[in-house]
Amino acid sequence: MQFRSDNYGPAHPKVMEAVVAANSGYDVSYGADAPMERVTALVREIFGAPEAAVYLVATGTAANVLALGTLTQPWQTVFCTPHAHIAVDECNAPEFFTGGAKLTLVGEADKMSAEGLREVMAPVENRGVHGAQRGPVSITNTTELGRCYSVDEVAAIAKVAHGFDQPLYMDGARLGNAVAALGCSPADLTTRAGVDAVSIGGTKNGCLGVEAVVFFDPAKAWEFELRRKRGAHLFSKHRFLAAQMEAYLLDGLWLETAAEANARCARLAEGLDTVPGAEFLHRPEANAAFVSLPRETHRRLRAGGGHYYLWDADDAELAQDGGPLLARMVCDWSLPESEIDRFVALARG
Amino acid sequence: MQFRSDNYGPAHPKVMEAVVAANSGYDVSYGADAPMERVTALVREIFGAPEAAVYLVATGTAANVLALGTLTQPWQTVFCTPHAHIAVDECNAPEFFTGGAKLTLVGEADKMSAEGLREVMAPVENRGVHGAQRGPVSITNTTELGRCYSVDEVAAIAKVAHGFDQPLYMDGARLGNAVAALGCSPADLTTRAGVDAVSIGGTKNGCLGVEAVVFFDPAKAWEFELRRKRGAHLFSKHRFLAAQMEAYLLDGLWLETAAEANARCARLAEGLDTVPGAEFLHRPEANAAFVSLPRETHRRLRAGGGHYYLWDADDAELAQDGGPLLARMVCDWSLPESEIDRFVALARG
Amino acid sequence: MQFRSDNYGPAHPKVMEAVVAANSGYDVSYGADAPMERVTALVREIFGAPEAAVYLVATGTAANVLALGTLTQPWQTVFCTPHAHIAVDECNAPEFFTGGAKLTLVGEADKMSAEGLREVMAPVENRGVHGAQRGPVSITNTTELGRCYSVDEVAAIAKVAHGFDQPLYMDGARLGNAVAALGCSPADLTTRAGVDAVSIGGTKNGCLGVEAVVFFDPAKAWEFELRRKRGAHLFSKHRFLAAQMEAYLLDGLWLETAAEANARCARLAEGLDTVPGAEFLHRPEANAAFVSLPRETHRRLRAGGGHYYLWDADDAELAQDGGPLLARMVCDWSLPESEIDRFVALARG
Amino acid sequence: MQFRSDNYGPAHPKVMEAVVAANSGYDVSYGADAPMERVTALVREIFGAPEAAVYLVATGTAANVLALGTLTQPWQTVFCTPHAHIAVDECNAPEFFTGGAKLTLVGEADKMSAEGLREVMAPVENRGVHGAQRGPVSITNTTELGRCYSVDEVAAIAKVAHGFDQPLYMDGARLGNAVAALGCSPADLTTRAGVDAVSIGGTKNGCLGVEAVVFFDPAKAWEFELRRKRGAHLFSKHRFLAAQMEAYLLDGLWLETAAEANARCARLAEGLDTVPGAEFLHRPEANAAFVSLPRETHRRLRAGGGHYYLWDADDAELAQDGGPLLARMVCDWSLPESEIDRFVALARG
Repeated sequence: MQFRSDNYGPAHPKVMEAVVAANSGYDVSYGADAPMERVTALVREIFGAPEAAVYLVATGTAANVLALGTLTQPWQTVFCTPHAHIAVDECNAPEFFTGGAKLTLVGEADKMSAEGLREVMAPVENRGVHGAQRGPVSITNTTELGRCYSVDEVAAIAKVAHGFDQPLYMDGARLGNAVAALGCSPADLTTRAGVDAVSIGGTKNGCLGVEAVVFFDPAKAWEFELRRKRGAHLFSKHRFLAAQMEAYLLDGLWLETAAEANARCARLAEGLDTVPGAEFLHRPEANAAFVSLPRETHRRLRAGGGHYYLWDADDAELAQDGGPLLARMVCDWSLPESEIDRFVALARG
Repeated sequence: MQFRSDNYGPAHPKVMEAVVAANSGYDVSYGADAPMERVTALVREIFGAPEAAVYLVATGTAANVLALGTLTQPWQTVFCTPHAHIAVDECNAPEFFTGGAKLTLVGEADKMSAEGLREVMAPVENRGVHGAQRGPVSITNTTELGRCYSVDEVAAIAKVAHGFDQPLYMDGARLGNAVAALGCSPADLTTRAGVDAVSIGGTKNGCLGVEAVVFFDPAKAWEFELRRKRGAHLFSKHRFLAAQMEAYLLDGLWLETAAEANARCARLAEGLDTVPGAEFLHRPEANAAFVSLPRETHRRLRAGGGHYYLWDADDAELAQDGGPLLARMVCDWSLPESEIDRFVALARG
Repeated sequence: MQFRSDNYGPAHPKVMEAVVAANSGYDVSYGADAPMERVTALVREIFGAPEAAVYLVATGTAANVLALGTLTQPWQTVFCTPHAHIAVDECNAPEFFTGGAKLTLVGEADKMSAEGLREVMAPVENRGVHGAQRGPVSITNTTELGRCYSVDEVAAIAKVAHGFDQPLYMDGARLGNAVAALGCSPADLTTRAGVDAVSIGGTKNGCLGVEAVVFFDPAKAWEFELRRKRGAHLFSKHRFLAAQMEAYLLDGLWLETAAEANARCARLAEGLDTVPGAEFLHRPEANAAFVSLPRETHRRLRAGGGHYYLWDADDAELAQDGGPLLARMVCDWSLPESEIDRFVALARG
Repeated sequence: MQFRSDNYGPAHPKVMEAVVAANSGYDVSYGADAPMERVTALVREIFGAPEAAVYLVATGTAANVLALGTLTQPWQTVFCTPHAHIAVDECNAPEFFTGGAKLTLVGEADKMSAEGLREVMAPVENRGVHGAQRGPVSITNTTELGRCYSVDEVAAIAKVAHGFDQPLYMDGARLGNAVAALGCSPADLTTRAGVDAVSIGGTKNGCLGVEAVVFFDPAKAWEFELRRKRGAHLFSKHRFLAAQMEAYLLDGLWLETAAEANARCARLAEGLDTVPGAEFLHRPEANAAFVSLPRETHRRLRAGGGHYYLWDADDAELAQDGGPLLARMVCDWSLPESEIDRFVALARG
C-alpha cells in the first residue's frame, strides 16, 4: 500500500519497451538522434506550437532550473508560492542555475492568484539598483498540494506577468495530471493561456527518468542548449531519453496514465470520506490527497503496511499523544485498486 | 562501420535486463533503493576501499564536475592537461560547479608527467592572495587520446599532488579500458596508487547512462550529496541508475566489455598497419586509435560508409587537396569484428 | 534640511585629516600598511577580542556579503528579517557572494525574536538533501527601522543560532548608533553576547567610505582574505581605508559621532511630537525616525526644502489626495540643530 | 628608493584637494552626485564618445571584472595573454564575476598580436555546445610588462575580435602611461581604434583609489549598474570617487602624471645602461623596467635601501649563489629624480 510518492512506482510497459527497442545498434549521440526528432514533432503538435524548442533532461529539478536559468537574470527575483518545489525541494538549485537570483514568495501555500501576484510584483524594483529586479513567474500545475490551476487562472496570471514584461513558466512535473483533471487540451492550458515555457514531467507518470522543457518562443533555444551542457545535463546516449518521451507522448499515453492516477486518488478520497475523523486539507483535484487523520488511525495504517508521508511532522510524533496529523497520499498510475480498498478498510479500523 | 564514439553504441544485454528487472513494483526514491546498497558494496570490494562513499549520476560531465566541485575551492585552480575533457568538452561546467575555479594546463597534450606537474604547481600561490591558489590534480585514464597512465605514473603524480596538500582525482570515463589494458587491478590503479576520488564510467562501455563517483575518504560525502541535489543530478527513480551499475560491475562485466573494446581497437590497428600512408599519432593502448591517413583514403572510407571524426579538421576539408588528415577512431565493445575487417579492406583500397 | 540618509553627510574633520596625513610618501599596498596594524589593535581592544581577525572594505554591502559568504555554504539559507538590508537593498549580492544561498525571513519587519527564530530554524533541514540547509543568522543593529537589539536580545538570538550549530553575524552598518543608544560597551553587545562576526560601519557615521569586518574567531581569516580579493574588494592603496578607520575608532570618535546623531534624532522626535497628526511607527531609538504625517504636512515640508524619503510610497503620491504617509528621517552626526528646529517649525505649519 | 609598484605612492595634491573640497555639506549618494555628472562629460569629451556610459569603482580588479562580466556570457571564454592581470593577479575574480567563464591564453607573455589572436580564436566553438564559446578579447595597455600596444596594433586586434562578433576590452589600469608614451590622443587609442570598453586607471597614477569604466556603446549600461551594485561596488558616498576622477582628468592632469612617471623610468633605464651586467627584458616603454642584474648587484641595492620586486624569484634566492635575476622596477609620478640617481649609483657599485 504505497502512497509515498508517484516517483516510487515503475515505468509503464510501453515506455520500457521503447527503451529496450532503442537499444539496438548505433545512434547519434548528444540529442541528434532520430527519436528526438519525433519527440519535437509530437510536442509541437500536442501544444499547438509549431516553432517550439523542445529539450529533454532526466530530472524535474533539472527541467525547472535550466528553464528558469534561461529566463532569469542573476539580479532578478522569481515569483513563486511558498510551497513551490523550486522554493523548498531543490536545495538552492534555482539560485545556483540562475547565478544567484532570489525567489519571492506569493500567496500562502501552493497557489497564487493573479491579484496576489500583482500586489507582490508591483512594488519590486521601485528603488533603482538597490533591490532585486522583477523576474519570471513560476507556477506548478498540478500544484505541490495536488490542486489545479484552471485555464482561466493561468491566463490571468500570465496577463499579470506579461504586464510587467516577465515570462510565465509552468513547472509541469505533473502536467499530465492537470490536463487530465481539467479535461482541457494541453495547448489550452499552456500556449493559449500565455505560458511562455513549460516542463512536461515524465518521471512521476510512467517513465524511468525524463522531463521535457518546452520554450514556445525559440529565441532562447541556443542559450538553453549551452546551459544544459554546462549544467552537465546533456546525455551522450540521449536516445534513451527520447525513446521514453516518445512512447510517453504517443497516442496520449501520458494523459491515460495521468487519468488513471487521478482516478485512483478519487477512489482513495471516496474511501477516506468514510473514515472517522478524516478531514481533507482541500478536496483532491488530481493524484494527491492531503488528509488529516487521528494518530490512532495513522498508527493502525503504519502497522498494517500503509506507506505515506506525514506532512510537517516526523513519524516519531506518532508515538506521542496528541491531535490529528496531516498526511500526504500520492497515487501513481500503477497503483492497484485493491490496494486502495485494503488501505481504506484498514483506516476505517 | 561506426567508429565515431563509444557513446554511439548500445547498452549491454545484461545491463538492459537489469533495468527491465528493476521495473517492478515500488522502490524507495532518491538513492535509498536496494540496488544502490549492493552497488556500494561492490565498489568497496573491487577498489579495496571499505569506507568509500559511492554515488551515481547519469553523465560523465556530472561525475567530473560534482567530484571536482566537492574537492575544489572557488579561488583555486585545478591542474589538468590541455586535452582534458574538463578543459575542452564541458562548456565551462567545471567553472560553474566549482563556483569559478580556474583550470591550469599541464603538459602539451593528453598526459602529464609527475615532473611536469611539479614544475607547474610549484610557482602557483607564491604571491599571497593575488593569484589563484593551488587546487586538485585531475587526470583522465584512459586519456582523451586513448593512452593509459600506468600504476607507477599515477602513483608519482599522486605523490606530487599530495606533496602540495592537494587531492588527485581520476576521470574514469573509460576506467575499465585502462584497467583492462594495463592488466592491473582497479585497486592498484586507484586506491593503492594514491587516487583520492575516481569516477567509474558506465555509459561508454555498456550502460545506458550511469557513472559512479567514488570518494575513498568519505569525509566529504555529505557535501557531495548536497552538491548533487543542488546540481539537479539526484534521480528520483534512482533504482534505474543503480540497476545499471550493479549489472555492470557484477562478475567483472565492465572489464569484459572494456577488454572487448580494446581488442577491437587492436584488431583495427593491426589492419591499419597495412594501409598505405597510415601513421599513428601513437600506438593505440586501449579502445581509440588516432591515425593519419591520406585524404584519398578518407574519401574512400566516407564514401563506403566509414564513420569517424577527423581530429582538428572539418569534413569540408576532405573536398580540398592537401596532405594527410588525422582521424579518431573509437571502438565500443559491441563493434562486430567483421565491420572492422570491412573497414580496413576499404581503407586499403 | 537633509534627512534622506546618513550617507548624504560629510566625513568628520578628524577622519579627513587622517586621510590627508596618510598621503605622504610611500607605503606598503594591499593591507600590509602601518595604519592597519593599529586598526587591528584598536578593534581587538575595543571588542575585548585579542584573537580577532580584522579587515577593511569600502562599502557596507561588501562587508555584509563577504562576511556572510565566508560563513555560509551555497546550499544553506541565511536567517534574517524581511527588512534586512541583505534581503531588500543589496540586489542579490548575498546570493552572489555565497554562491547561491537562500535567505529565509524571520519575523514581520526589522527585528526578530529568539523564539521567532527558533520556530523558523527548527523545521529547516528535516528532509535530508531536498531543502536548503540551516545557515547563519544575520541581524542588523541598529535595525533598518532604527531600533536596537539589546544585549539580552542579542544573547538570546545567539543562543538559538548556536543551538543549531550556526554562527551569528551582526550587520553593524550603524553599530556605533546602537552602542551609543544602549549605553553598553561594544564588547557587551558583540563578543560577550555570542556574536561570531560583526561589521563596524564607518561610512554613515563620519568616514568617507570604510567598514570593518571582524571575525572573533580567526579560523576563517585566510578564506576571508581570498574572498575579499576575489570579490575585487582588496584596495591597493589600502592605507587610505586604514587611516579613516584608525581616526574613527581612536579615542571613541565613532561613539561620539553616533551619540550626536542619536541626539539629533531625539531632538527631531521631540519636535515632531508637537506636529499635528504626527504618529511614530515606533519611538526612535537611535538616529532614524519613522513617522507618519498628513500629506499636507509633507507637501509643506517638501516645498520648504525638507529632504527625506517617503517609506513605501513615491513622491508622486503626494500630489494625490489621501491619508497620511509614512516617512523615514535619518539624522547624521553633522546635522545642525538649527536645521532640525527649522524643519519642525515648518512641519508645524 | 621605492620601485615596488606605482600603487605604493601618494595621491597627487590636486586630487587630494578635490577630495577635501568634496567633504562639505550634503550630497546625493550612490552616484547621482554633481561631480559625477562632470566626470561623465569629461570622459565623453576626452574619448570623443558623446554617448559613452561612464562608471566609477574603487579598484582596478573591480573595473576589469565588472566590465568583463557585463560583456561575457558564463559559457564563453575571454581571450587574454598569459601575463594578463585578469589571468594571474585577480584570484579568480573574472571567473566569479562572469559566472564561470574561462580565460584562453593568447601569445607567450604580455602582448598578443592580431594574427596570434586569430589563430587562437578561430578553432574555438567548432564543436557545438561541447567547448567554451568565443567571448570578448581583453588587452592591457600599457601591458603588465610595461609595453604599449600602438594605435595600429589595437586596431588590428579589434578587427579580429569584431570579425568573430566579439567586443574588445582594454584594461587601462595604466592607460595614461600608454597614451603619454605613444603621444596619441586617448580617443585614437580607444574609440577610433575599435575598443568597445575601457577602464581608466586612477589609483596607480595620482588618485587614492578610483577607476573609471567606460562603455562607448551604452546598450549595456543598465546591466553594468546592476552588476556593480550586486558586486557590492556601488559607493554610497560616491562623491569621493567622483571628486578624485574629476581632478584627475581635469586639464590633463592624468597625462601629466603619467608622462612624469614615464620620464622617471626613462631616466632609470638610462642609468641602468651604465650598470655592469644589466640587461633589459625589453627596452622600457612606459613606467616599468624589467631588468636582469647580477645577484651581487641586487644584494648591494637591497642593503642600501633599494625596494623592488624580483620577477619570478623570491628574495630568499638572493642569499644563494647563481646567475643574474630579473627585477621589476616601477616608477610612480612622485618619485624624486634624486632617488633614481642614488639608486643607479648604488647599482653601479
